[in-house]
Amino acid sequence: MDRNWVLHVLETISGFSRGENGITRLALSEEELGARGYVTGLMQELGMKIKIDGIGNIIGRLEGTDSAAAPVIVGSHLDSVPEGGRYDGVLGVVGGLAAIRRIKATEHVKHPLELIIFTAEESSRFGFATMGSKAMAGVADIKAWSKAKDAQGVSFTEALVAAGLPSDEIASASRVGEVIHAFIELHIEQGPILEDEELAIGVVEAIAAPTRLRIKVEGTPGHSGTTPMDSREDALVTAAQIVMAVREVALSRYGDGTVGTVGNLKVHPGVMNVIPGIAEMWVDIRGVNHESIVETLQELKDEISIIAEAEGTTVSIEVLTSDKPVRLNPMVINIVENACKDLKVSYKRMNSGAGHDAMHMATIGPAGMIFIPCANGISHNPEEAATPADIMTGIDVLTRTLRTLAE
Amino acid sequence: MDRNWVLHVLETISGFSRGENGITRLALSEEELGARGYVTGLMQELGMKIKIDGIGNIIGRLEGTDSAAAPVIVGSHLDSVPEGGRYDGVLGVVGGLAAIRRIKATEHVKHPLELIIFTAEESSRFGFATMGSKAMAGVADIKAWSKAKDAQGVSFTEALVAAGLPSDEIASASRVGEVIHAFIELHIEQGPILEDEELAIGVVEAIAAPTRLRIKVEGTPGHSGTTPMDSREDALVTAAQIVMAVREVALSRYGDGTVGTVGNLKVHPGVMNVIPGIAEMWVDIRGVNHESIVETLQELKDEISIIAEAEGTTVSIEVLTSDKPVRLNPMVINIVENACKDLKVSYKRMNSGAGHDAMHMATIGPAGMIFIPCANGISHNPEEAATPADIMTGIDVLTRTLRTLAE
Repeated sequence: MDRNWVLHVLETISGFSRGENGITRLALSEEELGARGYVTGLMQELGMKIKIDGIGNIIGRLEGTDSAAAPVIVGSHLDSVPEGGRYDGVLGVVGGLAAIRRIKATEHVKHPLELIIFTAEESSRFGFATMGSKAMAGVADIKAWSKAKDAQGVSFTEALVAAGLPSDEIASASRVGEVIHAFIELHIEQGPILEDEELAIGVVEAIAAPTRLRIKVEGTPGHSGTTPMDSREDALVTAAQIVMAVREVALSRYGDGTVGTVGNLKVHPGVMNVIPGIAEMWVDIRGVNHESIVETLQELKDEISIIAEAEGTTVSIEVLTSDKPVRLNPMVINIVENACKDLKVSYKRMNSGAGHDAMHMATIGPAGMIFIPCANGISHNPEEAATPADIMTGIDVLTRTLRTLAE
Repeated sequence: MDRNWVLHVLETISGFSRGENGITRLALSEEELGARGYVTGLMQELGMKIKIDGIGNIIGRLEGTDSAAAPVIVGSHLDSVPEGGRYDGVLGVVGGLAAIRRIKATEHVKHPLELIIFTAEESSRFGFATMGSKAMAGVADIKAWSKAKDAQGVSFTEALVAAGLPSDEIASASRVGEVIHAFIELHIEQGPILEDEELAIGVVEAIAAPTRLRIKVEGTPGHSGTTPMDSREDALVTAAQIVMAVREVALSRYGDGTVGTVGNLKVHPGVMNVIPGIAEMWVDIRGVNHESIVETLQELKDEISIIAEAEGTTVSIEVLTSDKPVRLNPMVINIVENACKDLKVSYKRMNSGAGHDAMHMATIGPAGMIFIPCANGISHNPEEAATPADIMTGIDVLTRTLRTLAE
């Protein structure tokens, strides 16, 4: 078995990191370029031909027996959030490499096999997520991206040039119009469901999309000592009720899989002796059922009107993004499910709450995803962990899926 | 009448300010030193002898007919918060000056009259409030104050030296042991009560003291898309319930005059796609009834235990300060009340929700306070306002009070 090889490659990639705490390997950083170079070398050892497209996606290709056949693609990303974990993205790249390595060692398949390392899946560095797969799906927002800068003021364009890439060929990364036989991505779940239910594999049916809101509450600032309790218009008291409303409305939509989170709240002026005059909140509502998201949003707006009316405060709601959930391909889903059955591996069909490169690949070809459990559902964190056993089971299912797709 | 003189002096002092928005005249800043110099000149014009004590309190003294009699003191402060108003503090200084000017013009009183401009009443610059009156009351925290620095890194000691004062004589400002006949401070209410009830004067009976808490909630961070609603330990959801509990517990204590405010709340990591792992809150509970404050705090702790238990989060409560409310002197309160009656001015006995220099002067002599209405109860804000009619009524009551005390 190739277990030691897989664990060694994962370990080596985790060495490409900055800082002491967890993995920091931002998109197109020195650390990520190092990891990309290392994996590119492994692809070349396997006899894959390497192409780097206009946004820096690395595409390794192994020809099949029919050179005219459409490619079967596996892939994920090597960039991380700051102080993230060892598996998010990396598992899909290393798992894909291991699966192709196994297939090459034992048989000749009809379809070409491709392994893609997508550029800038995490939004941490430039503020935009899944940039590489968006470009491949022909939906690059080149105008907005050209203005994007990292925390040090380095623009995305400058980072491309620093990585030895052209600055103005992002549009050429599009594969819209090309026939793609299938795309499959192996990933940690980033949630607690598989671990809680003691299952080995998640067969992903749909990927949730976020609707994001900025909610601003305006009350009346006043002296915290001299303003009687019954004549206050406290922006934070209104905001607290909105936090609870987000939870209640989302809980009532539990059956739809729709979730709601207030990720941040800021108070102005934010001093001990002044009643808060302004409170701002950032809200993330997501699910795989678009209708449920729309209804959740409407219910939340109704609740907020009632709260603001009762508190004498003014609440404004700005919709920052409103993406549609993505359904994965039923044929690919069946093939993954059958791989689990054939291998006698426990699994369930489930949805992905997080976004992935597969979201965009699904718009240009039949796409699927395979999840493995991660410890306590934690990701984007140094504590992110997956067991060697679960990793190898994931690669087994991926290998069988790829083989079936490529035959 | 001296109405035009009073309004002219108030207007001139408001010219000692930095920036465009409201009044910014931080303690011992160039702007405050200018205002102090201007008022010192007015005191000298009145024939007052000037003394500056070890913390920079300016003491102007006009001898009475009995040089052995204890002084009757009036005073307040000239420093402001950043972007504050024209009346907080200034009214007490100018009103005191006007009252002494009237008395000097018409009669000879027995007791010496003193006007004090206290140093650093506002905590905005150095993080400590009522520094001058604390020093005079012998409760200067010289060790802590010597470490205090402003936002530009200038220490309190350096600011004293820059103002031409000695750096190590703060302790000498104490007047503990000296007989003080009475202290009286005129001030805007900083609350809405007098305006709402259409009253001219507030006769202050007690000054509320704050108990201040830092409450930290620790939950479990997680991906906002992948963590089911029913398996979350969201620190912000717990914090929101604590915000509501502070309000409910304080509302239930309405009869005691105890109020509670969450002035600030911060979320970590505070990003859109992560369930908040930590939420911190800063809480101010205050009132004039110490027992009520203690009971409020206990009720709040009980509520927080129930909330934390239900949410699966950990809550820690740190008591930052816990001061005792101050009762003002019944004899002085009666004299102020009689002045209102004699002048046929509407008034009510009330409490002060905000802290004042009178709090500390009350520990070394019989002290009272006189409030006048301010527009919409607003203070510490450019919109802070008081009408000329209310200002002059306040000065009339202050003059009559001083005269009675000094006879």
